[in-house]
Amino acid sequence: MRASQFYISTLKEAPADAEIVSHKLMMRAGFIKKLSAGIYNYMPMGLRVIRKIENIIREEMNRAGAVELSMPIVQPAELWQETGRFDKMGDELLRFKDRHQRDFVMQPTSEEVITDIVRQDLRSYRQLPKNLYQIQTKFRDERRPRFGIMRGREFTMKDAYSFHKDFEDLKREYQNMFGAYSSIFTRLGLEFRAVAADTGAIGGTGSHEFHVIAETGEDAIAYNPDSEYAANVELAEAVSPATPRPAPSAALTKIHTPGAKTIEQLAAFLKIDANQTIKSVIVDGDEGVPVLLLLRGDHELNEVKASKLAGVFSPLRFASPATIREAFGAEPGSIGPIGFQGKIYMDRSVAVMSDAVIGANENDYHYTGANLGRDFPEPAVADIRNVVAGDPSPDGKGTLAICRGIEVGHIFQLRTRYSEAMGCKFIGEDGKEQVMEMGCYGVGVTRIMGAAIEQNFDERGIIWPDAIAPFQIVICPMGWSRSEAVREAATSLYTELRAAGIDAILDDRDERPGVMFADWELIGVPHRVVIGDRGLKEGQAEYQGRRETEATKVPVAEIAAFIKTRLCN
Amino acid sequence: MRASQFYISTLKEAPADAEIVSHKLMMRAGFIKKLSAGIYNYMPMGLRVIRKIENIIREEMNRAGAVELSMPIVQPAELWQETGRFDKMGDELLRFKDRHQRDFVMQPTSEEVITDIVRQDLRSYRQLPKNLYQIQTKFRDERRPRFGIMRGREFTMKDAYSFHKDFEDLKREYQNMFGAYSSIFTRLGLEFRAVAADTGAIGGTGSHEFHVIAETGEDAIAYNPDSEYAANVELAEAVSPATPRPAPSAALTKIHTPGAKTIEQLAAFLKIDANQTIKSVIVDGDEGVPVLLLLRGDHELNEVKASKLAGVFSPLRFASPATIREAFGAEPGSIGPIGFQGKIYMDRSVAVMSDAVIGANENDYHYTGANLGRDFPEPAVADIRNVVAGDPSPDGKGTLAICRGIEVGHIFQLRTRYSEAMGCKFIGEDGKEQVMEMGCYGVGVTRIMGAAIEQNFDERGIIWPDAIAPFQIVICPMGWSRSEAVREAATSLYTELRAAGIDAILDDRDERPGVMFADWELIGVPHRVVIGDRGLKEGQAEYQGRRETEATKVPVAEIAAFIKTRLCN
Repeated sequence: MRASQFYISTLKEAPADAEIVSHKLMMRAGFIKKLSAGIYNYMPMGLRVIRKIENIIREEMNRAGAVELSMPIVQPAELWQETGRFDKMGDELLRFKDRHQRDFVMQPTSEEVITDIVRQDLRSYRQLPKNLYQIQTKFRDERRPRFGIMRGREFTMKDAYSFHKDFEDLKREYQNMFGAYSSIFTRLGLEFRAVAADTGAIGGTGSHEFHVIAETGEDAIAYNPDSEYAANVELAEAVSPATPRPAPSAALTKIHTPGAKTIEQLAAFLKIDANQTIKSVIVDGDEGVPVLLLLRGDHELNEVKASKLAGVFSPLRFASPATIREAFGAEPGSIGPIGFQGKIYMDRSVAVMSDAVIGANENDYHYTGANLGRDFPEPAVADIRNVVAGDPSPDGKGTLAICRGIEVGHIFQLRTRYSEAMGCKFIGEDGKEQVMEMGCYGVGVTRIMGAAIEQNFDERGIIWPDAIAPFQIVICPMGWSRSEAVREAATSLYTELRAAGIDAILDDRDERPGVMFADWELIGVPHRVVIGDRGLKEGQAEYQGRRETEATKVPVAEIAAFIKTRLCN
Repeated sequence: MRASQFYISTLKEAPADAEIVSHKLMMRAGFIKKLSAGIYNYMPMGLRVIRKIENIIREEMNRAGAVELSMPIVQPAELWQETGRFDKMGDELLRFKDRHQRDFVMQPTSEEVITDIVRQDLRSYRQLPKNLYQIQTKFRDERRPRFGIMRGREFTMKDAYSFHKDFEDLKREYQNMFGAYSSIFTRLGLEFRAVAADTGAIGGTGSHEFHVIAETGEDAIAYNPDSEYAANVELAEAVSPATPRPAPSAALTKIHTPGAKTIEQLAAFLKIDANQTIKSVIVDGDEGVPVLLLLRGDHELNEVKASKLAGVFSPLRFASPATIREAFGAEPGSIGPIGFQGKIYMDRSVAVMSDAVIGANENDYHYTGANLGRDFPEPAVADIRNVVAGDPSPDGKGTLAICRGIEVGHIFQLRTRYSEAMGCKFIGEDGKEQVMEMGCYGVGVTRIMGAAIEQNFDERGIIWPDAIAPFQIVICPMGWSRSEAVREAATSLYTELRAAGIDAILDDRDERPGVMFADWELIGVPHRVVIGDRGLKEGQAEYQGRRETEATKVPVAEIAAFIKTRLCN
């Protein structure tokens, strides 16, 4: 491609509504252009990245034995009523009527439609298993679309659905897809991690998320650097401390702690570590009665775990200040278990504490020297906290580290949730009719573009992995209109690289070097060759990788061969 | 691809609602599956065809210098209000509200969005021209979707939009696109014709349709087999006859013609040719006054031409029987010009008639020997009929032939209809702001799939052109599970063809030969090789092209080379 024939549109400043780095850089580099909230045009530069991502996904899905089809974006309500999702899903499911006043939805996923296809076509165990996928536009009417294409309303997803004669075969395919996803993200050139995940709203059991690792990621992931263990912090088990609870050595003492409302303030006031305090969190119970949860002062409540406790209202809801005042007789910040008559749970790490500091249920007062069993009844023990770096790994092999990630893929064992509701059955080897087992496997194509940038950028712009860069290499001639020698050398290198199947762009726009370099660094093309009269006199061109700080002089005759050694794929 | 790993689902019978051959065959061969009226799943077999069509279009558009981008399916109403189309378009424009009650549409085309992009990005003549295209899902809420994917609601289109500094440059690009379209349809392997077309509702001037030639086509096309001339019959000029009008030789005679209401009945009754009669057609005039149109009895009124006559109401509306009775004093079927005081137009071919038969404005009576000027005033002359085969070609080079076609592409010179309304301007070389000239260029991707079948089928099924066949060649082993020799020979040929880049499928389903052949003939794979034990003993395999009636024996060692000579691409 010649730059003059392409569509390059870079901006000095990102628009004010761009909050995160990938959104800012994509807007500035001309990859996307906003059309409406959460709805973006994919400009030529951005579309090249998307197509490369799609192709890698397609190749790996095909290699894994899945078969591509395409289901409509507009789907009739009837199928969604069969599974109950037409009524159960929130406003993110866009519903509308056609000219004949019939109800339709825009697909956010396609479980209903694929199950409808399969129940019509596949009737015998001999036709199973099948894994069918599409790479298709999805719509989710987010209340507050944000982060550019990371949480947009219209986006592209690869969604695959597999059908099986039994659970064993579903588990086999689940492993197969796990492998395919690992290959996809490896080929995309991204640092990623597969993590055990909550199944969320889509239903079913058994699920992994694939995360692109990035400091700016929305999700916290606990992983064991020395093993395969990784889990969303929402789900990662905080194992019981191996150390026993020390015997009490201090007396229960009420002390005045004016202004110490938070654990930080309390620890600072008492000149102790936060891990010597116990944090009291009050949540709504099943019948409007508040439930008290005790955590070590330096730990955080895990809401997913807490919402599963017997007697706790789900989804988790923190008790209102009024409820707290009524139940404990004090303001939040001075609350504790002593004297509370309701249900109390304590985290596993609280169960091994002694001589702790707790709220006294009297404004601006705490107890020191509080001890379980001695000063208040032993509460039930549960795992209700988020793991932290240094916690023992649940697989017993060392300790956990924490990183942040962006979810870009998700695989589920759906089991029979959809096939049962929609009567998707087959005749087994024994002649009897059975409900199919199902799996589903999603990858956010456009989301990957954003996540790749969150993982790979610097102050000058994007740094694409070779496999998904809009162009693999840019040739920058110095003085295109001025020097015939430069034009010839640049064009000849361009032609040679293209002939070798390398996706090169020749910048023939005749821009000043500063503008040219700034554009390509912003756009993030990973390799650059500069050709100028001065170098040509010495028979040299200059190569520079996007992450490198200095250029390498390479003889013009060898530059094409040199570049090939630098490309990852 | 191995058939056992693919998704093959053929039906013995087409569903009852499939009216035309391409719809029936696509349903039977498992290319598409209906989801809702005018909304279809593209099954794996059909999607392979669509992807091949898309790739040819993409390659030719890129070669012609156009740049691909992708615009959202869901578009905000505001832009459509700027051009007035939000209100002006009928119910085929699907409008809906999002969760915040804001108005959106689903794109049937994207003139508004592309113009919005360009007015933001391109501000200088130096950035022009640009031709931007997308291959994207469209939605048109047809009142009565039919013909399968030929007139569906959700479909795939390639739509391109070009922007220019002046009309000259638009015309240059229009020619460029004309050439690109010719290359596209040639590469698709389809017999096609580019025809001058009415611009229709989309607006602008200068337009060609590209038609795939098929007897079942909706449109009639007049073309000159000896020149480049081709036009939709709606627009083709019927030139004035070269012969002068003969002098009157008969007297005006009123005769009783009981029951002769139509031209056919009249000519049969009088034992004359229909071309000796004059047909009277009455249409509504501008102010409710009927207008009389005279055509030679064997000719058909061209409504597009007639609607453009001065004094004729547009769009054309035939006068009601009551209006006719009131204005002429007789029923339709006995109407004529003698005595009618209103406006009369006659077709050019009527202007050279003498001694004609016309209605007498008295039920069941006609005149013979009627002559223009002598028996009634000479009406205004106009071209108001459809051309017929044998008419002189308007380009003066021989005579016209008529064929039928399916419109699959359309190119327009939009001029400034959208750029003016939306303020899409640039700074010219002279420093002055000017409105851009625009062109637009559409191809119906999914429609091509249907049209290709309408052009290429027989009683056994589809016959795909090589370039867009779901697979180029099928290898049919006789007795897959029984014979190791057959398995080995078939697998080895399959591997060899795949390595040579040939899109082969190996039918390892172990079906009976009859089922296997019927499936692949229905699906329309253009080349087939049969490998069986009997042939292998003689070292032979059997090749048969889909249009051939007999197989050719080819030595197994030479079969791969033989096949390559048979492939078109």
